Amino acid sequence: MKQALFSRRNLNFTLWEVHQVQQLSAYPFFEVHDQTTLEMVLDMATSIAEQIQPFYQPADKQEPTCIDQQVTVHEGVHVFFKAVVESGLLAAPFAFEWEGQQLPKSVFAAVDFILGCANNTFVMFSDLIQGCANLILTFGTDTQKQIFVPPLLAGKWAGTMCLTEPQAGSSLAEITTTAFPQPDGTYRIKGQKIFISAGDHDLTENIVHLVLARITDAPQGVKGISLFIVPKNQLDNPTLANDVKTIGLYHKMGQKATPALHLAFGEEDTCTGFLLGKPNEGLMQMFQMMNKARLGVGLGGTQLASAAYYTSLQYAQERRQGRRPNEHLPTLIINHPDVRRMLLEQKVIAEGTLALMLQCYLYLDLAEVSLEKQAHYEALLHLLTPVAKTLGAELGNTAVHQGLQVLGGYGYTSDFPLEQMARDVRIMSIYEGTTGIQAQTLLGRQIGGSQGKILTLWEKEVQQTLANAPQELLIFLEKFKQECAEFKLLTANLLKRSSSQGTEALLSDATLYLHYFGLLNMAWQWLKMGLVAYQALESTTAEDAFYRTKIHSLKFFFKYLFPQGRTWLAILQNEEHLTCKQTEEQLVW
Amino acid sequence: MKQALFSRRNLNFTLWEVHQVQQLSAYPFFEVHDQTTLEMVLDMATSIAEQIQPFYQPADKQEPTCIDQQVTVHEGVHVFFKAVVESGLLAAPFAFEWEGQQLPKSVFAAVDFILGCANNTFVMFSDLIQGCANLILTFGTDTQKQIFVPPLLAGKWAGTMCLTEPQAGSSLAEITTTAFPQPDGTYRIKGQKIFISAGDHDLTENIVHLVLARITDAPQGVKGISLFIVPKNQLDNPTLANDVKTIGLYHKMGQKATPALHLAFGEEDTCTGFLLGKPNEGLMQMFQMMNKARLGVGLGGTQLASAAYYTSLQYAQERRQGRRPNEHLPTLIINHPDVRRMLLEQKVIAEGTLALMLQCYLYLDLAEVSLEKQAHYEALLHLLTPVAKTLGAELGNTAVHQGLQVLGGYGYTSDFPLEQMARDVRIMSIYEGTTGIQAQTLLGRQIGGSQGKILTLWEKEVQQTLANAPQELLIFLEKFKQECAEFKLLTANLLKRSSSQGTEALLSDATLYLHYFGLLNMAWQWLKMGLVAYQALESTTAEDAFYRTKIHSLKFFFKYLFPQGRTWLAILQNEEHLTCKQTEEQLVW
Repeated sequence: MKQALFSRRNLNFTLWEVHQVQQLSAYPFFEVHDQTTLEMVLDMATSIAEQIQPFYQPADKQEPTCIDQQVTVHEGVHVFFKAVVESGLLAAPFAFEWEGQQLPKSVFAAVDFILGCANNTFVMFSDLIQGCANLILTFGTDTQKQIFVPPLLAGKWAGTMCLTEPQAGSSLAEITTTAFPQPDGTYRIKGQKIFISAGDHDLTENIVHLVLARITDAPQGVKGISLFIVPKNQLDNPTLANDVKTIGLYHKMGQKATPALHLAFGEEDTCTGFLLGKPNEGLMQMFQMMNKARLGVGLGGTQLASAAYYTSLQYAQERRQGRRPNEHLPTLIINHPDVRRMLLEQKVIAEGTLALMLQCYLYLDLAEVSLEKQAHYEALLHLLTPVAKTLGAELGNTAVHQGLQVLGGYGYTSDFPLEQMARDVRIMSIYEGTTGIQAQTLLGRQIGGSQGKILTLWEKEVQQTLANAPQELLIFLEKFKQECAEFKLLTANLLKRSSSQGTEALLSDATLYLHYFGLLNMAWQWLKMGLVAYQALESTTAEDAFYRTKIHSLKFFFKYLFPQGRTWLAILQNEEHLTCKQTEEQLVW
Repeated sequence: MKQALFSRRNLNFTLWEVHQVQQLSAYPFFEVHDQTTLEMVLDMATSIAEQIQPFYQPADKQEPTCIDQQVTVHEGVHVFFKAVVESGLLAAPFAFEWEGQQLPKSVFAAVDFILGCANNTFVMFSDLIQGCANLILTFGTDTQKQIFVPPLLAGKWAGTMCLTEPQAGSSLAEITTTAFPQPDGTYRIKGQKIFISAGDHDLTENIVHLVLARITDAPQGVKGISLFIVPKNQLDNPTLANDVKTIGLYHKMGQKATPALHLAFGEEDTCTGFLLGKPNEGLMQMFQMMNKARLGVGLGGTQLASAAYYTSLQYAQERRQGRRPNEHLPTLIINHPDVRRMLLEQKVIAEGTLALMLQCYLYLDLAEVSLEKQAHYEALLHLLTPVAKTLGAELGNTAVHQGLQVLGGYGYTSDFPLEQMARDVRIMSIYEGTTGIQAQTLLGRQIGGSQGKILTLWEKEVQQTLANAPQELLIFLEKFKQECAEFKLLTANLLKRSSSQGTEALLSDATLYLHYFGLLNMAWQWLKMGLVAYQALESTTAEDAFYRTKIHSLKFFFKYLFPQGRTWLAILQNEEHLTCKQTEEQLVW
């Protein structure tokens, strides 16, 4: 890229040395790949990233338009989409029978990372298409697969996920969009959906909306929700509309290249939908796509953390300002400890969250191909998805704001991309379930639902990956183990409290619990990286500097970020209920 | 206001009950005022706030324009300016001889708070004018006062401060704008200044730029900087320009109603400037204005924290979503503990930083009128200015982002003002010296410069204001005292380290030290508020609810915010130097 927005060296380190993703080739589904072929895919992604990077700021300044019900997106999106389709990347993670390359999802995540560092708002178009195709392949009939998957993966059609309604944001139990059964087995869909990303555009001849709706007479709540395929235009004649109307475009703080729409389905009672999977199981099915989308959102935070880090790093390496003690001339600001701290914090966040994200994607691959340990990897993936999503989002925000701060006043102006990155990254804590929702999932469903047993699984996995730690790592490993012990004890106490004080008391500080567990997962990944780096330094003299810096970053993590656990532990141990309504009805706001 | 963006009850509580600002009337300069007259001033501010609030989002969407060297600002700015001038508020804090009302600065800060809650970007125009007038009154000749102050305070002329240059941001030692002495005692000014807020506009017939520049042959560095009054137009003929040109307007993330300019002085060698005060003492003089501006920036963060809190509170009180355990219908989201936590955090930040800001403004008043204790109050003010500025800025950012999060996806759209507040508040950590610069001032100049003695002064002041604490407060007071003892010990250790390891080592984590001290100051203010609230509850049964909620907020502060000190202490006690360059030259970025 014109200006590097990620480190290929570090990406290689994380993929091949830390997670050893190339070992997936041992499974038949991935056997055609080896590290060399996989690296070529990353090279291709890098070349597309170079093409789309120049559109990052222009596509923000020139928002999509909507004229006569037709949304037009920035030319940069077209450049991106054409490149992703023509390079074969769009279909790459899919099976050969669907013209894919059976690329591991962990390697495609690296592709997404490379593209998203250059332009995080564009990748949503391709992510959504892949998500739709995946869902149809999992739950669709053979006919549905034949009709929808080939045009989706060929980039002829695009996709969306339509969940949210004006009265039902995070709470999908409230959705009211209705599906009326027709004699021919199809449904008439009627209702409104909001915040539909890529809900309309001029990239493709058709758009496949995956819509949550209630079949007439379905049970109330989440148990009465079904999933429908609703094309924008009629299948047999794509020049005719299927009664899906754009009510409006949202104006957003960032993410401006991706239009977010308010859509009306069936205003004229002629909107046809096709049931996907079983009736009333729509929400459960949709969660397959949702969970992958959550990982994508976390990865979005990581992308922006990396882009902000390298942008502010370059600035700090070029900008002279202020003097060091006993020096007479202004120094490069990278030499000031406060600036180095802000840069190292970004580095540690970008590299640590990337490692955790790729760890999750590796579990995703393993859950799909490892028959005997499928349940094991799925359990870990379910446990870590809300964590990785939130860490990418929340720490991504922290990192980007540190990047902006490095540039001072310039960071606040649109002369540099930092202010846009700060606007773009802000959505990650909201997309696909806010941080608060992720926290309920973690502490309520995963931890509470398993009575804490899932943590034992996690602990074993962590222990196994950190076995044989070299002497130098022990001091950090010991800190980590102590904190894990505290966390385990805390969890047990919380669960006890839950049975005496109820679910609401248990979940009241779930967000802080999530942050705390997230920190432990960051520590785990940094220890994994440190372990590999120490081993590399022992076994070779080549590339010393990269590994030494990795160890320096590990130390930085343990000095500056890890102590945050002390605070969360103190809060979570405190049993005063200051946020549960029943305990203090007298509050005047 | 249409929608309340601040609590007048809480403002009254902070002014009259906690800080007892009305007692300033005991000093001759303020003797014309009593609580009743001062409250009328606040009423007037509220009525202006109601007028300008509707312009908050429109003035963001329609940025200032610059055509033929003339900047035009939004009509809302005109409405605001007219109201502030005609109401007499612009001149209010000044002496009677300048047509002012001798209003205490602490009360004017409350005025600014009220106006800024409604529209934080507008108040900069009036703040700058007052700052300029103040500086000229302090350092100007009688003639200069007569020429400049009346039109400034009458709103006929406006003002700016011109410090930053393209090559000299935070480091003013590097400025190169030059002042060439002329036979008539004036100077020809030549140079460029950047990021000049309100650097041009169509509000007034002239603009008084206060410009830092070097007289030819002045010493290098900060000891060769002088201060000049440079009018935009010629004094004797305001229709003729004084060779001050607009090179460009910056496009910013937020604060869009206030134009930020790149200005060229003396491109045609005909820019006349008037020396203000003594040659080569310009920077020291400018710091008078700068320090007040720093308080103003902190107050800006508080304004936005308050505005975001009340906006998200209203949303949470109207929006139904999700169910509480054992309830069948969707509940208002304010009933969810996670949402209550986000609201209470905003409340505690908004009210706590407001109390600290007003504490500082009270010291400012006392430093001006209390002859015998002037040095005492000035010392406290100097110590607390970087703290209050940074707390307002950094916690203001935290609060606004919590507010946005309460609204979920809607918070990210411009249907609501939260996304704009998040963009507006981001500058506060940069304006008038970044957080890093504030930290150097605190730990280097204030703490280091006094070898820690200034802390003893602070401690005494704190003890005095917390004397006679009621029984119920003791548990919190004890926590606070313990943390203060840790902080004192830490400070002593840091200063010891400084003498053995050098200044750079001392200052390397100054930012975290500032955050830590800031937290103690927030705790102090919350204890002061708690003390008053407990006393009020003992002595009366009226208005119980307000005081009980105040105590609830105090508890919230001690549960959720105060434990953060544990983390900062742990980091600051760690003596590894991971950010000082000399200790690890091998770092590859």
